Amino acid sequence: MLAKPCSLAILHPRLPSCTRQVFLSNFQFLIPAHSRYRSSLSAAAQSPLDGGAGAGGGRTGALSPPPVTDEVAQKIDVNPPKGTRDFPPEEMRLRNWLFHNFREVSRLSGFEEVDFPVLESEALFIRKAGEEIRDQLYCFEDRGNRRVALRPELTPSLARLVIQKGKSVPFPLKWFAVGQCWRYERMTRGRRREHYQWNMDIIGVPEVTAEAELMSSIVTFFKKVGISSSDVGFKVSSRKVLQEVLGSYSVPEILFGKVCIIIDKIEKIPIDDIKNELKLVGISEVAAEELLQVLSIKSLEKLEEVLGGAGEAISDLKQLFSLAEKFGYSDWIQFDASVVRGLAYYTGIVFEGFDREGKLRAICGGGRYDKLLSTFGGDDLPACGFGFGDAVIIELLKEKGLLPDLNQQVENIVCALDKKLQGAAASVATKLREKGQTVDLVLESKPLKWVFKRAARINAQRLILVGLSEWQRGMVSVKILASGEQNEVELANLE
Amino acid sequence: MLAKPCSLAILHPRLPSCTRQVFLSNFQFLIPAHSRYRSSLSAAAQSPLDGGAGAGGGRTGALSPPPVTDEVAQKIDVNPPKGTRDFPPEEMRLRNWLFHNFREVSRLSGFEEVDFPVLESEALFIRKAGEEIRDQLYCFEDRGNRRVALRPELTPSLARLVIQKGKSVPFPLKWFAVGQCWRYERMTRGRRREHYQWNMDIIGVPEVTAEAELMSSIVTFFKKVGISSSDVGFKVSSRKVLQEVLGSYSVPEILFGKVCIIIDKIEKIPIDDIKNELKLVGISEVAAEELLQVLSIKSLEKLEEVLGGAGEAISDLKQLFSLAEKFGYSDWIQFDASVVRGLAYYTGIVFEGFDREGKLRAICGGGRYDKLLSTFGGDDLPACGFGFGDAVIIELLKEKGLLPDLNQQVENIVCALDKKLQGAAASVATKLREKGQTVDLVLESKPLKWVFKRAARINAQRLILVGLSEWQRGMVSVKILASGEQNEVELANLE
Repeated sequence: MLAKPCSLAILHPRLPSCTRQVFLSNFQFLIPAHSRYRSSLSAAAQSPLDGGAGAGGGRTGALSPPPVTDEVAQKIDVNPPKGTRDFPPEEMRLRNWLFHNFREVSRLSGFEEVDFPVLESEALFIRKAGEEIRDQLYCFEDRGNRRVALRPELTPSLARLVIQKGKSVPFPLKWFAVGQCWRYERMTRGRRREHYQWNMDIIGVPEVTAEAELMSSIVTFFKKVGISSSDVGFKVSSRKVLQEVLGSYSVPEILFGKVCIIIDKIEKIPIDDIKNELKLVGISEVAAEELLQVLSIKSLEKLEEVLGGAGEAISDLKQLFSLAEKFGYSDWIQFDASVVRGLAYYTGIVFEGFDREGKLRAICGGGRYDKLLSTFGGDDLPACGFGFGDAVIIELLKEKGLLPDLNQQVENIVCALDKKLQGAAASVATKLREKGQTVDLVLESKPLKWVFKRAARINAQRLILVGLSEWQRGMVSVKILASGEQNEVELANLE
Repeated sequence: MLAKPCSLAILHPRLPSCTRQVFLSNFQFLIPAHSRYRSSLSAAAQSPLDGGAGAGGGRTGALSPPPVTDEVAQKIDVNPPKGTRDFPPEEMRLRNWLFHNFREVSRLSGFEEVDFPVLESEALFIRKAGEEIRDQLYCFEDRGNRRVALRPELTPSLARLVIQKGKSVPFPLKWFAVGQCWRYERMTRGRRREHYQWNMDIIGVPEVTAEAELMSSIVTFFKKVGISSSDVGFKVSSRKVLQEVLGSYSVPEILFGKVCIIIDKIEKIPIDDIKNELKLVGISEVAAEELLQVLSIKSLEKLEEVLGGAGEAISDLKQLFSLAEKFGYSDWIQFDASVVRGLAYYTGIVFEGFDREGKLRAICGGGRYDKLLSTFGGDDLPACGFGFGDAVIIELLKEKGLLPDLNQQVENIVCALDKKLQGAAASVATKLREKGQTVDLVLESKPLKWVFKRAARINAQRLILVGLSEWQRGMVSVKILASGEQNEVELANLE
């Protein structure tokens, strides 16, 4: 996926979605048929407790159990399921490189890694705000009649774990995760249904220092992979801006999340549709007009003129910009009132990373979510975090020519020159590996030409040949592949 | 999970399953209700194409879409779904340590990492042999009416990818993966439904050198984590032993996989049931008797007496034991004809790792599967591999007192002594991080006592205090926490 010329659309729980095409080939292969699947659905649903016992016995659930296969052949695709990816070695190296940078940056800031199940109770992700992420939930009923979902984002699981841990953990928590997230769209073709997302979250810090620290980590990441502030920036605002405007029109707080989700679509659907949606949830025309006016503001000074200087929105944002200067990334950030983000749970500062050429979707996004825990029945804790997907960043790096050149690297290739010496070659491999050297051991009798070709492909530094006459003298032949220099080395001296 | 005193049962695609209890607490919290779920199943199934459009519009599939929530509150569990695990920092450190060792060992042998989707087409896992793994498939129908499954093992996906790559990849492939695998059991309580599995596979080598290389890697892993051949061993056999016995009774080859699955249950169900199952698939009583006799053989010499010396079973096994000696792990392996493994697709050498005290289930298992690709419609390639789960090894390490002591390690904790100096502390943190130093930045005004407590908990090496009078002189106070030594250091000289 990552390195291919066609860019792939992926799910961004904290990002707007993208809509590019993925081109799948159509190789089809034969496998045993399972033609009974479709019709078994309703029948199985009628006997949910007919659990089979004993080895090989059938079991039923709300859905059909795996069918008993019959002899008729049916074609399957050798591609991964629609919208998902395989990671062959070249893609995996890139993924590992990316994740390594996510992890290194997180650790530099003293964050600890966590993870949660990719499968969660559906209830964890249900919110009432009409978010895209909720509408595209990859949910289903398991064989025990439980509603479950492949997680669309990591934050609700984190909130669940924080509530579960309760007072047993010392705050603040500084946690990061790199996990796969899923979405399901029925109608579109070729959009990716999974992506990986890097999250960093700080739980227990009410001050804007937390948001500033998170953005500092993202900047550190960008610098680490070669991206500068002339490539990328952050648009920053606060949901308290909206809250103060809505408050001045006595709009009930319960509508706040819904209004944010509507506002987030401002660049995707016509402005009249936005106004209409706002009207539908009960925002007066005059309030909607003022809201839209305020959202067009691009400077903090102008915002202060409009809102007055007393509110939390202004003071939070001022503090954030002041801290950004001290952290050393003020050239990366700018105020933009139109940024509200598409998740219902944000309550304060919100931000998103964007490419300055405007070619790509948001690279990352995050903000403060001080009231998420109570929606799960927990005690609220001040919290903020961000999500950073694995797709847009790869597109950007490709665009900028910053994708690293990642090849397989093996220090030694060890080869017996005679089938009878395969055991000897094995002992040489063991000896080198015990010294921490990576060894590709040639496992068959192959011509030397083949061995050299393989050595070149895996970028081996040395070729170690085990030949009969040398072996009888306790020696092996060591060839440095870059220089072509070749020596006989005593086995005991092989390092 | 991993470090808790109660041991957890997990799924081992290539291992027999375990059946221990997991104790879940019962904290319940309030979330919005979704009481319409159950009844919506059949209704939704009747209108599978009623896809909604537009923002917030509902979509339907064969299953119900996420419900529109109403105001009635309903309890959910803050525990992860039944049979799954969270990984809070302490568990994640252990998981990372384990996976790091899996990866390091794989790379030592020149293997490349790969991965596949955790969600695959169900058809990929359907086989006719009555395997436990197939009967416990975590399968469901997605909202597009496709039968999918959370993968129970990695090998079928690998086979799929190898077929897809076709002749474009140079053989042999030496691939490894560390991935999460799932199973679903309806009737039992408290068994784990997911585990992680380390796989190494060699595709394209027909010789037993490949199996020998794989076992060498597992031994390297064991040594790396402190386990010796007095703790653990491998039982090795070949399915060709069974094949030769069945062949001598003219049992059709198509029954082979089924017979192996029955035989694999030999230690779990009464011998009369085994005989009965063999009879049911069409094995004569006399053939079954000989089969069971051969399976009790524990020495290669005895086997040779019974089978004669000409067959492939004997020559493969002899070569493997000879190579094991050269690789240096002959004290780890022993012949045991009763080992057949519980997967239908093995065709040759099979092996499993076991603890010598006999307290635990198999630690790992694998073998040769030369005919798997053709079951998916591909051209067969010689192949072998193993699976190594994350649960039994942790139990064993715990048992032996070999679990590593993994604590959070942060080099510096940086703290402003005055709220006004938080920006200054931020700049100190940035400076240190740019030099590659890990820094926990205190984000709030906290008493020094609190800061020292936190420093101790995160095992910080240095406490860097930013106080007003020092800062005005361009200095910070640096305290080495182990010795208590404290100095003022010029900011420019801070390393």
